[in-house]
Formats: sequence, C-alpha cells, structure tokens
Amino acid sequence: MSDTVGAPGRDCPGRRPELPTHDEMASWRTFLRAHAGVTRMLESELEAEQKLSLAAYDVLVQLSEAPEHRLRMTELAEAVLLSRSGVTRLVDRLERSGLVLRAKVAEDGRGVTATLTDAGQERLRIASTTHLRGVRRHFADRLDPADLAELARISRKLIP
Amino acid sequence: MSDTVGAPGRDCPGRRPELPTHDEMASWRTFLRAHAGVTRMLESELEAEQKLSLAAYDVLVQLSEAPEHRLRMTELAEAVLLSRSGVTRLVDRLERSGLVLRAKVAEDGRGVTATLTDAGQERLRIASTTHLRGVRRHFADRLDPADLAELARISRKLIP
Repeated sequence: MSDTVGAPGRDCPGRRPELPTHDEMASWRTFLRAHAGVTRMLESELEAEQKLSLAAYDVLVQLSEAPEHRLRMTELAEAVLLSRSGVTRLVDRLERSGLVLRAKVAEDGRGVTATLTDAGQERLRIASTTHLRGVRRHFADRLDPADLAELARISRKLIP
Repeated sequence: MSDTVGAPGRDCPGRRPELPTHDEMASWRTFLRAHAGVTRMLESELEAEQKLSLAAYDVLVQLSEAPEHRLRMTELAEAVLLSRSGVTRLVDRLERSGLVLRAKVAEDGRGVTATLTDAGQERLRIASTTHLRGVRRHFADRLDPADLAELARISRKLIP
C-alpha cells in the first residue's frame, strides 16, 4: 500500500477534495510500514520459539479474555486484530491441535462457539513469554514515554 | 492481541525487565486496534465497490511501483504490507484473473517473477479511486496536520 497510484492530490487548491494529500499519504504509508515491521518480527520470533503464528496467538488471547473462555465464531472474527478472513481455517487447525474446542450453540442450533481448552490456556501461557518480550523489544523499547502516550492518543482517533 | 496474558509487568521496581509495562501494553493494543479498524473499513469498501481484497490491492500496488512492473516472488513477499504468508495463493488468483503474469527468471532458472499486466494496471487505476477516498475518510480526515506529522515521526522509530 505504498500507494501513489491514482494521482493522490498535491497540496494545491485545485486538487480533488476526496484524495489524500502527499503528506497524508506519506504518514499513512509510514504507519503501515511500522505495523508490518513490528508484527513481522513478533511473528518470526513466535514461530521460531513457539511454533505458533501471530494470528493463532491472537485467537488464543481473545478466547482467554472472553467469559468462560468462549466466543461465538462471529464474535471471535470481530475480536481478532489480525486476519479476520482466515479465522475459520485457523480454528480448524487449533482444534486439531487440541487447543480449542468447537460446539453448536444449544439455544438456537445455528451458531457455533469456540472454547479455549486447558491445553490451549497452557500453550498461550508459555507462548506469551516470547510475545511479551517481543512487544517490549520491538515496540516499547523503541519509544519513549511521551511517544507511547502520543501514539495511543492518535491511535484512539482512528478506532471506529 | 489485547494481551494481558502472562502478567505484563506493572510499573514497579521489582517487575521483570523483559515484560512491557501496563502503559506500554495499552499503547500497543491501541495501535493494533487503530490499524485493524482502518484497514477493515478500507477492505470492506474495496470488496464492495471493486471486488478486490486489500491484500490483492497491495500486491497490484507493489508491482506497479517496481521497475518494469515486475518483482521476484521473494521480493514481492517482502514488499507487501499486509499478509505475506498468503502471497503465493494470492498471485495464483490474480494470474487466473489476468491481472498478473508469472514467469521463470531466465538467468538462474530457479526464481519466479510476477509482472503486472495491462489489465492489472487498469484494474488498479480504477480501484485506487475507492482506496484513496477511503484513506482520506478513515485516516487523514480523523487527524489534524500535527497528528499526521507526529504519527509519521513515531512510526519511523518502529520501522526495523
């Protein structure tokens, strides 16, 4: 998405108002690169040390924070912060590994829930040491306290 | 990754130095939510109006910006800012749609390149109107010029 395609508007009076300016696109691209850079480092460490993708870790975390460690598949897809599109296949794999259990929702017979198993909880506990160390090294240690507060303030404006 | 698992260190002298503090984790979570929120809106508009995933758009953009509109698959996987893991399957689909062409690298007979076709270039040109309008609405319009500059400055510190 380092996108200059489509002639983004320059900062001049005649530009189409719908297009981002050059400075806006530069900020957007840098934001995307930062996210991609940090998450790739976290992912490579998690895969090397824990044999878990970051998306799988994300699913385990979301379930661990839910009441009774359980979410409907639709809620889980909403809650994850990474790839939403691959959640069904991901839960298939996690179920085969015994980390997650799926069940039909009793009340309506249509929905399906995913529940974190004890093995999933334990796997998450161990994996979190790698992940949290990575967040410290690749994110927190690169920013000073004022940057961290500023980034949180600006990010909040972007949350729908 | 709204991760509080693994007892992230509190801001007290005795905490394990490897773990992020509560404030660091809060900033990290907000940063992830902002990224997920904006990219999901861009994705849903792009799919609704252009029948393209954001990851496919990302691939087309990276090829359009490369010399001769061509990259080795390994370079492409490095260049994309979204899901690197699915790039091979994504290029399969883009090739079937006539937007990308794959070829063996003549020199060494091992590598494979992907090239943007004229149809791919045209498809990207049309899709970019949706995407750039989305970047303006969901990103640029939510931030003032000082925020945009701050976000770029902080993001640069996070790029490896």
